[in-house]
Amino acid sequence: MDLAKRFKQNPLLKPADLEPSRAGMVIECLLNPGVFRFQDMTWLLVRVAERPVQQAGHISVPIYNDYGGIEILHFRKTDPDLDGSDPRVIRYKGKDYLTTLSHLRLVCSPDGKVFHEPEGYTPIFGKDKLEAYGIEDCRVTEIEGTFNLTYTMVSALGVGVGLIQTKDWNSYDRRGMIFPPHNKDCAIFEEKINGKYYALHRPSSPQLGGNFIWLSESPDLIHWGNHKCIATTRANMWDSARIGAGAAPIKTSEGWLEIYHGADADHRYCLGALLLDLNDPSNVLARTEFPLMEPSEPYELKGFFGNVVFTNGHLVKEDTISLYYGASDEVICGAELSVKSILRTLLIK
Amino acid sequence: MDLAKRFKQNPLLKPADLEPSRAGMVIECLLNPGVFRFQDMTWLLVRVAERPVQQAGHISVPIYNDYGGIEILHFRKTDPDLDGSDPRVIRYKGKDYLTTLSHLRLVCSPDGKVFHEPEGYTPIFGKDKLEAYGIEDCRVTEIEGTFNLTYTMVSALGVGVGLIQTKDWNSYDRRGMIFPPHNKDCAIFEEKINGKYYALHRPSSPQLGGNFIWLSESPDLIHWGNHKCIATTRANMWDSARIGAGAAPIKTSEGWLEIYHGADADHRYCLGALLLDLNDPSNVLARTEFPLMEPSEPYELKGFFGNVVFTNGHLVKEDTISLYYGASDEVICGAELSVKSILRTLLIK
Repeated sequence: MDLAKRFKQNPLLKPADLEPSRAGMVIECLLNPGVFRFQDMTWLLVRVAERPVQQAGHISVPIYNDYGGIEILHFRKTDPDLDGSDPRVIRYKGKDYLTTLSHLRLVCSPDGKVFHEPEGYTPIFGKDKLEAYGIEDCRVTEIEGTFNLTYTMVSALGVGVGLIQTKDWNSYDRRGMIFPPHNKDCAIFEEKINGKYYALHRPSSPQLGGNFIWLSESPDLIHWGNHKCIATTRANMWDSARIGAGAAPIKTSEGWLEIYHGADADHRYCLGALLLDLNDPSNVLARTEFPLMEPSEPYELKGFFGNVVFTNGHLVKEDTISLYYGASDEVICGAELSVKSILRTLLIK
Repeated sequence: MDLAKRFKQNPLLKPADLEPSRAGMVIECLLNPGVFRFQDMTWLLVRVAERPVQQAGHISVPIYNDYGGIEILHFRKTDPDLDGSDPRVIRYKGKDYLTTLSHLRLVCSPDGKVFHEPEGYTPIFGKDKLEAYGIEDCRVTEIEGTFNLTYTMVSALGVGVGLIQTKDWNSYDRRGMIFPPHNKDCAIFEEKINGKYYALHRPSSPQLGGNFIWLSESPDLIHWGNHKCIATTRANMWDSARIGAGAAPIKTSEGWLEIYHGADADHRYCLGALLLDLNDPSNVLARTEFPLMEPSEPYELKGFFGNVVFTNGHLVKEDTISLYYGASDEVICGAELSVKSILRTLLIK
């Protein structure tokens, strides 16, 4: 029961549509955009994953060095200390390196379907030692004229959630890591509840616990506390292995509607929904039993990492959710969903 | 080069010295006390790990139920779905259960050597679903008359750091989870630095990252941000597998002196020290190359989990650190260290 009406223009963006950020790099994937309205247009903040041009007999991986430049490390494929079995991560002498380095790039569109890279907006790159392996999967939450960008900081020190604030998409205030490792999939609510900011996030645990959705409170968006687990994975279901929030929850008359992703042990990623109490979002009122959206189109079934639909951005106008999503970790797509239809699914007992 | 002068009264407390918290339970271990001064005495907030009286042919494990009581789960040792190979954790049908349930108990002493349980002070038990598997390893930091207890909350939802505040050790304000999973070993600094509270903590990661010491800032002790990694494990050394903060850092003329624990791949736990910049504690000035203290006495070499010295509490008077520690995850011991001797070790290049 797939409730999503895919855009007929899908995929909206593919790696060949953008230029690499610098010579010697190739765009491997476009992923999981944050979405916002700005200057009467629809904007996507796209995750662009690049890898160095590969040399025969080697795996070459990129990392940021201490001076903001990119350093390329070359590993001989026959080196017995190298484990190159995963396309996304290699392991060398007990240390992990990502095969790609991600940055965030702005594209915009008057109609929400055909996107272009505007002049005068620079990409956002990792720049701290906590971002030496890049920055990924950014949610954008606008609160009182300020855009709050929550994204994944990746480095050998761990994977956590960073916050950047901007009003104009030209100057950026980096607020540091707001959720320590291991954490990602952070979506800030668009308004305060009883005087406090709220965010969903997804810590992961090496033992006990799992890949669950948590809720936290903040007085200032920078410091967070009162962490509570609000949803766990469900055995033998489509969301049995990991779940994580999508974009900021949608305020409805029935509660906060959150579209989340879930994956099973085969790494098949689908979308579902949670309904949270308006006054106390730690109180989960309902959860979809079946996916709202699952990989079915060719571009969702095959790609850099197939069988994936993953969202962290949407726009809502009355009943219509314009949802943007990464398909197969390679291309950017869009689909429409109806708030009422999702609520109907959630509220039937 | 062990700098610690063990108390000749060691071990100061062993499981038989205290009564179980309720009928049907047995105290298995006393561990890792928080330490503070109160009413002109030295107090320890001891972690008491209990397990149910075991029945023949079964492993019985305790968990808190939703009503604050203890529920005992019995697993047949021959059940093929049971993995009981680890004395600390069993796994049944993909879910982990601790074999013991820990609570925190107060003992006090006029001389810091001979401890007794005072009348009129109740133990602190886990009471939330985030504490269904108990509470562990509490640090106590006194700030302006309020004692801040940072401890490990353990449940099937994950392992995180909780905060409880008290002024009188009779009424307690539970402030919720302040660091989300997977996190433990949290020590709050005893004073603000440039207007902010600081804490050390230890997130762990299922991939990338590791078991490293991080530093964070807070306006109010409840909400935390600007997380930074300040120390990592060191390959082929005594602290190669995991490190974590001990008690609140000691303010010295040379910097904040932090006594931390480190373990290697064989789970041998020793103590070392970090020296942090007084004005910017994210700046690590020095780190001990060799342990300050390592398991050597019989009670440190053998016990519930042998080869362990682990501290999260001490008192400091002029040059003398009275350090309390868990030995072999079974008994509580004490030792004296000199601030100057540790600084000398740290500052020699």
